Amino acid sequence: MKAVVMRNESLGIEQVKDPEPGPGEVLVRTLACGICGSDLHMYHHCEHALEGFKRGGIPLQFDPAAGVVFGHEFCAEVLDYGPGTDKKLTTGTRVCALPLVVAPDGLENVGYSNSYPGGYGELMVVQEAMMVPVPGDLPSNVAALTEPLAVANHAVARAQLEGDEVPMVVGCGPIGLAMILALKARGIGPVIASDFSAGRRALAEKLGADVVVDPAVKSPYKSWLEAAAPADYDISSPLAMLGLDTRAKPCVIFECVGIPGLIQQIMVEAPARSRIVVVGVCMESDSFEPIVAIGKELNLNFAFAYSGEEFAQTLYDLADGKLDAGSIITSVVRPEGVVDAFETLATPEDEAKIMISFE
Amino acid sequence: MKAVVMRNESLGIEQVKDPEPGPGEVLVRTLACGICGSDLHMYHHCEHALEGFKRGGIPLQFDPAAGVVFGHEFCAEVLDYGPGTDKKLTTGTRVCALPLVVAPDGLENVGYSNSYPGGYGELMVVQEAMMVPVPGDLPSNVAALTEPLAVANHAVARAQLEGDEVPMVVGCGPIGLAMILALKARGIGPVIASDFSAGRRALAEKLGADVVVDPAVKSPYKSWLEAAAPADYDISSPLAMLGLDTRAKPCVIFECVGIPGLIQQIMVEAPARSRIVVVGVCMESDSFEPIVAIGKELNLNFAFAYSGEEFAQTLYDLADGKLDAGSIITSVVRPEGVVDAFETLATPEDEAKIMISFE
Repeated sequence: MKAVVMRNESLGIEQVKDPEPGPGEVLVRTLACGICGSDLHMYHHCEHALEGFKRGGIPLQFDPAAGVVFGHEFCAEVLDYGPGTDKKLTTGTRVCALPLVVAPDGLENVGYSNSYPGGYGELMVVQEAMMVPVPGDLPSNVAALTEPLAVANHAVARAQLEGDEVPMVVGCGPIGLAMILALKARGIGPVIASDFSAGRRALAEKLGADVVVDPAVKSPYKSWLEAAAPADYDISSPLAMLGLDTRAKPCVIFECVGIPGLIQQIMVEAPARSRIVVVGVCMESDSFEPIVAIGKELNLNFAFAYSGEEFAQTLYDLADGKLDAGSIITSVVRPEGVVDAFETLATPEDEAKIMISFE
Repeated sequence: MKAVVMRNESLGIEQVKDPEPGPGEVLVRTLACGICGSDLHMYHHCEHALEGFKRGGIPLQFDPAAGVVFGHEFCAEVLDYGPGTDKKLTTGTRVCALPLVVAPDGLENVGYSNSYPGGYGELMVVQEAMMVPVPGDLPSNVAALTEPLAVANHAVARAQLEGDEVPMVVGCGPIGLAMILALKARGIGPVIASDFSAGRRALAEKLGADVVVDPAVKSPYKSWLEAAAPADYDISSPLAMLGLDTRAKPCVIFECVGIPGLIQQIMVEAPARSRIVVVGVCMESDSFEPIVAIGKELNLNFAFAYSGEEFAQTLYDLADGKLDAGSIITSVVRPEGVVDAFETLATPEDEAKIMISFE
């Protein structure tokens, strides 16, 4: 099959061996696949990221020299079943699938694996139990947004919001935009969103953010304060610092950037008792000053992926219009356009999600 | 008055001006004061710590060159009242007090302030509203443990335990020992405790830790696993990593050391979905790898200080024997012995809390 392959530090179209479905597995043909920020991170910081996963005992390992086909945000159609499968979905059925194969001897990540090529290639093998059929006529490009939107839905669930908080979304890339959608779909808000890029700020507004801030011009924490607290609330007063001025609920901040230094920056700027949900995936080493987090009694909640239920529910929400996510897609490219797309996404002024289409 | 004064990077006995109680304030005579790990940190890393507080907008500032009298864990007796006070406690009443003065123009920290000398000196000024009378004949040395024990009680409350978790206490210095007491007093456990020092491990056992580990010999996470999960639970299995093997509740880890590198080390070694409550106060810069915390969906909960209610309740629990904390005190020194005590506590093999007695 034809696939965009990352081999060491290069990326390009190659002809590679077709994957073959093993027991409980299904061969699918890729229809659409999103380019994820994690793919860019993994391309630019592969060695360090793999080391980090290893040190943390996280089962995500592959040999970059042996070639890897990225792509874990996909919509595909069923082509053929491996042995020991239930075959409940007919050939040609469009599916999304959790990009995970749970084998008895470990996990494999579709798109971050030498054995399970992802949606940057024409064919994939997924686990039958991980597939969810795409309802109705939802476009494949939009169905492929299920994965990043499930990440956002999971992060909202993990934040355990009570509903009357004023959440803040830091960074309006695809994950930040998905966070805005997920929060608004649950009626949580007003939502403050912040990004240096005018293009992304426009998208944030389009997707429902109530207050959109350019942090170069105005602190999003000031906007948060205006929206979350009465006019005479003094964020640095003794009572506020001690958590005794309860007229404002703690600030819930979704970190959707994932670059070194950002967690420390948020810690420094956030009001006392803020809850920071880390959704951006930083794969480099980072530094911070614990004393800042201690003195303010911050909470750092790292969110990752989603459950099977959250994934399926997200796809259903996309299909019935509860999540109107199409405008997160700012460009559609053919596989041949992926290398250029990676260039563009290195400084993504006006881009959010670039979708690879095989249709 | 006579006081142990930190001036720049030196520590010594000096004669300093008696403090005078302002409006709402009370002059007290120090009876006992604990040497806190934060005092040691503040002595060795003063400039960096003050910078960290400043960057975080935390109102704890003083000029080290102007001289500071440490000591925020104290028992004292009422000597004289300032103007505008209620004077409900007669002269000679023994009190503990939150080491905090809430003034209209900001907070002052008794013991970390140029204007409010702490319990390393013979006299202090505290805020009347912050005082709690010591019940009955509780020894002053033990009453002076109210502050660190309130820190531990607050950390337990902040951890929002359901009662059937198996918590782990990393580091059995005074705060770790206080954590063990606070957990056991609430019937939470078994409690796993870990420390490299044999002396501190013996104290941990004496104070009620159920399993005490030398991490040089055995991983405390292995002990946790033995106590918290069935024998066939595989911590690195796909199901456990995905949080789907729910036969073990998430590990709740109380970090009670507060040195750089420890948070990252815990992140690397902790089981997926662990909740790390940071109680140790690290005043230096620190580094970590977000990817480890993300992949395991860890939660980092920074705990600091306590509420007025928690402080008072802790003193009552000490007085009625609910907290049997006396053995946390491993040495009692006179003010003249503080400089040596700081030396000893730099490598505290067998020491936990060293108490300064003025009685």
